[in-house]
Amino acid sequence: MEPQTDEARSRAGGCCPHLHEAVEFIGRRWTGAIIEVLRQDGPLRFSEIVQAIPGLSDRLCSERMKELEARGVVERTVHPGPPVRVEYDLTPMGRALEPSLSALRAWAHEWL
Amino acid sequence: MEPQTDEARSRAGGCCPHLHEAVEFIGRRWTGAIIEVLRQDGPLRFSEIVQAIPGLSDRLCSERMKELEARGVVERTVHPGPPVRVEYDLTPMGRALEPSLSALRAWAHEWL
Repeated sequence: MEPQTDEARSRAGGCCPHLHEAVEFIGRRWTGAIIEVLRQDGPLRFSEIVQAIPGLSDRLCSERMKELEARGVVERTVHPGPPVRVEYDLTPMGRALEPSLSALRAWAHEWL
Repeated sequence: MEPQTDEARSRAGGCCPHLHEAVEFIGRRWTGAIIEVLRQDGPLRFSEIVQAIPGLSDRLCSERMKELEARGVVERTVHPGPPVRVEYDLTPMGRALEPSLSALRAWAHEWL
């Protein structure tokens, strides 16, 4: 059997694996909220991100920031001090999520 | 302290709880894929949904379909037989997710 391209799968009525991956990536607990907060107010320090998101713990925020950085959605900049300041911001890949998040925001406001 | 509206929170740089809820809802494992498959080819029978999504088990599909139905995103129709036929399709609320999913699909194809 030949490997299927995304388009062939899509035509065949299957689900697109890239979309599947994207949807589960931004849907991980707190990921959407972190991206949203950075989009509005980035660059932000770690403590400012935690403060902006009620319910988000330091531990989970740190886990998510590492994932987002590894994925290329967020970049971490160290400004040498003193005092040293570490800031996080969206990369172009992260900013490119805006149309999806804004469509989802509109949906949420209409339907939830 | 007065309860904050979404907009006040958003202005204050917090994350919008509705967006947060929406993003985590569609990000639940397999949810995006199921919505996508129904959007393309719905109405579908349970077995057709499972078949269209490689890796999705009967058990998880059944769990997700119940959640999607409870949330109002999917509706289940029983066509009295014989043979009885049960079909699933997106509701208007489910179809309204299309702009978000299509923006996310575009992002995924460009960046993943």
